[in-house]
Amino acid sequence: MKKYTEMTKEELEALRSELNAKYKEYQAKDLKLNMARGKPCVEQLDLSMGMMDVLAGGCDLTCDDGTDCRNYGVLDGIPEAKELLADMMEVPVDNIIIYGNSSLNIMYDTIARSMTHGVMGSTPWSKLDKVKFLCPVPGYDRHFKITEYFGIEMINVPMTPEGPDMDMVEKLVSEDESIKGIWCVPKYSNPQGYSYSDLTVRRFARLEPAAKDFRIYWDNAYTVHHLYDDKQDNLVEILAECKRAGNPDMVYKFASTSKISFPGSGIAALASSLNNLEDITKQLTVQTIGHDKVNQLRHVRYFRDIHGIIEHMRKHADILRPKFEAVLDILEKELGGLGIGEWTKPKGGYFISFDSLDGCAKDIVARCKKAGVIMTGAGATYPYGKDPKDSNIRIAPSYPSLADLITATELFALCVKLSSINKLLSAKE
Amino acid sequence: MKKYTEMTKEELEALRSELNAKYKEYQAKDLKLNMARGKPCVEQLDLSMGMMDVLAGGCDLTCDDGTDCRNYGVLDGIPEAKELLADMMEVPVDNIIIYGNSSLNIMYDTIARSMTHGVMGSTPWSKLDKVKFLCPVPGYDRHFKITEYFGIEMINVPMTPEGPDMDMVEKLVSEDESIKGIWCVPKYSNPQGYSYSDLTVRRFARLEPAAKDFRIYWDNAYTVHHLYDDKQDNLVEILAECKRAGNPDMVYKFASTSKISFPGSGIAALASSLNNLEDITKQLTVQTIGHDKVNQLRHVRYFRDIHGIIEHMRKHADILRPKFEAVLDILEKELGGLGIGEWTKPKGGYFISFDSLDGCAKDIVARCKKAGVIMTGAGATYPYGKDPKDSNIRIAPSYPSLADLITATELFALCVKLSSINKLLSAKE
Repeated sequence: MKKYTEMTKEELEALRSELNAKYKEYQAKDLKLNMARGKPCVEQLDLSMGMMDVLAGGCDLTCDDGTDCRNYGVLDGIPEAKELLADMMEVPVDNIIIYGNSSLNIMYDTIARSMTHGVMGSTPWSKLDKVKFLCPVPGYDRHFKITEYFGIEMINVPMTPEGPDMDMVEKLVSEDESIKGIWCVPKYSNPQGYSYSDLTVRRFARLEPAAKDFRIYWDNAYTVHHLYDDKQDNLVEILAECKRAGNPDMVYKFASTSKISFPGSGIAALASSLNNLEDITKQLTVQTIGHDKVNQLRHVRYFRDIHGIIEHMRKHADILRPKFEAVLDILEKELGGLGIGEWTKPKGGYFISFDSLDGCAKDIVARCKKAGVIMTGAGATYPYGKDPKDSNIRIAPSYPSLADLITATELFALCVKLSSINKLLSAKE
Repeated sequence: MKKYTEMTKEELEALRSELNAKYKEYQAKDLKLNMARGKPCVEQLDLSMGMMDVLAGGCDLTCDDGTDCRNYGVLDGIPEAKELLADMMEVPVDNIIIYGNSSLNIMYDTIARSMTHGVMGSTPWSKLDKVKFLCPVPGYDRHFKITEYFGIEMINVPMTPEGPDMDMVEKLVSEDESIKGIWCVPKYSNPQGYSYSDLTVRRFARLEPAAKDFRIYWDNAYTVHHLYDDKQDNLVEILAECKRAGNPDMVYKFASTSKISFPGSGIAALASSLNNLEDITKQLTVQTIGHDKVNQLRHVRYFRDIHGIIEHMRKHADILRPKFEAVLDILEKELGGLGIGEWTKPKGGYFISFDSLDGCAKDIVARCKKAGVIMTGAGATYPYGKDPKDSNIRIAPSYPSLADLITATELFALCVKLSSINKLLSAKE
């Protein structure tokens, strides 16, 4: 296949006519497909239906230590749920607090509390002139929305297949006291599916921040979300690594069962040092009497233990793997060697990251939309929704059926071609 | 029965010897009873066990509008849950947002948001020199803990059987721009079981606050929590009343099913004007992807509609009524006419409020504790835990068995007598 970048004006124009005709065919199909969000598909949701049965039939809702899960009480989670999620998050059971249904909400609360009450005795951020966060890009839009909502200035840090550019992270964090945090999705990152290398994690743990209240916001959303049994990314456990490095309080770790059981009806947790948890508990005890213990018990009774979660995740993988592979196959077949796009090939998580020629992402997403396929908005993977190169697009293969996904990806590839041709042609004018 | 206040020193001393002997008998019993918190008892929790069955057996978890409750999405609650709670809260369905498991958490979030982002465009409270709240006293300790946590100055407003002292509320609110809110439990109040009179609610709706961001925090926790079918308090609906009075945005209304289904595993809601909800949604959309829709569906499938809730609350009442009556009977029999205490006689809610002679409450609670009966800490019903007269004690009859409750209340009455005698004797010295 000849590279588009090596084609003459005439070749490109001829190709455009041909592709435009194809595009019109797609438009005529009246498609309504969505590859925008990392939503599990119906078959994945069906995997957890047994969860609705485990507490039925008048069964005893008492946990091992005698607590009646139906009544008030227990601020940090029932012991068996703490064990389950501690095993999943690879931390000691004492380092965990079980929250409600949403890890995003825990992250929001963490920032909100830092704004009004500081971090372990530091000045509340709302009293400071300037608060900044480092944002590895492209990244997760909902992280960036939280920091934006609180008026925190966001600084882009480029991502590499090994994780964020650590030279830049180390330099900025050590020089600027107003930098209070960094957003990380360290395993099967959103949107690339990259996992931080051992060295990257070790460099994180050894950061020497100018701000005492600097924290790493370690959103380990995809910790058990492998696509393959034999090819799995491994991530160095950050809490232990920070402790070894003499920075035990430097990290907040977040996770949930949203993409294990039911999104929106799972359980979420925070893991951190005892000092941080003590600080957080001062808030938590004012904020609520306790989270949903019945749902905690439901998860424990259904999954039993971490092995149960791992076995369950195999079933998710069996559904997701063909979808990821279909997208990657089509991208390779349609776009491979054309020099108009690059994409990641994740071994887990929920996304594929696509980079088009500069200045084409918005146009590609708009073209897809006009033909009935919704992609994540171009720019969404950057703070303030501003992708400086206008090149990154997040692909979420999980939700559509395999047949729909194939159609949508073929259309996507077509739109990439059309946008690229226009871009290349306009450069020749 | 002769009033203690009319007894001679010798009579009091003789009585004290007699009562001290009785107290020692209680101490010998090695009691472990708890009348501290408004926790439902096991029999009440058993009422809702059917809730664990309604979604079992692979039943369809789709709601009326086609939303799959198992997946992400829906920020403000599924329509059928909104209808159920709107009916319970006596507001239009458009004026409600369904949250997670805790109305206390909604209140916390409401204050937290006002601190960082203000109210409908007002200056964030964290930027102001001084923020104050009015606190009808005695009141609910967890309300006061929230405002205390955010450094908000609390001003005591005396409660009457008609509600807060409205002369004082009107005056303070209209004069002082730093007063941003008032905590209210308007129906079967915590701890008195008072319900605000029609006139009180009307005066609330007609307040003319100096602060544009003043809001009434209307915690209607006990809206359907009657003890009797024939004797029920009625409360004028505040949202509609504020609208009629030209103050549509002045109130946030909170409720939950915590004491209807399962405490900690219920669903909570906020009701307010569309303007307020729009303001709040700006936060909510950043804070979470959505609350637990499966649990919302569970509640709807179990209760079906407001009539289902009312029927269910009859069963709660059948369990609670004998307990309240037992406590009131013992108080009347043991303390009636002695001039050493007054108490409320609620027709609903979870508490009885007891007022001892000034300066006796802490001593009474300590005496109870030494004999194995835990009461709500004296002072807890006041901001900062400071009851200026040291006289108020909250009695929570729900949790202990009837037999235990009788023992605990008899001991309580005995401790009231002993403390009062000591108080009266020390005044004679």
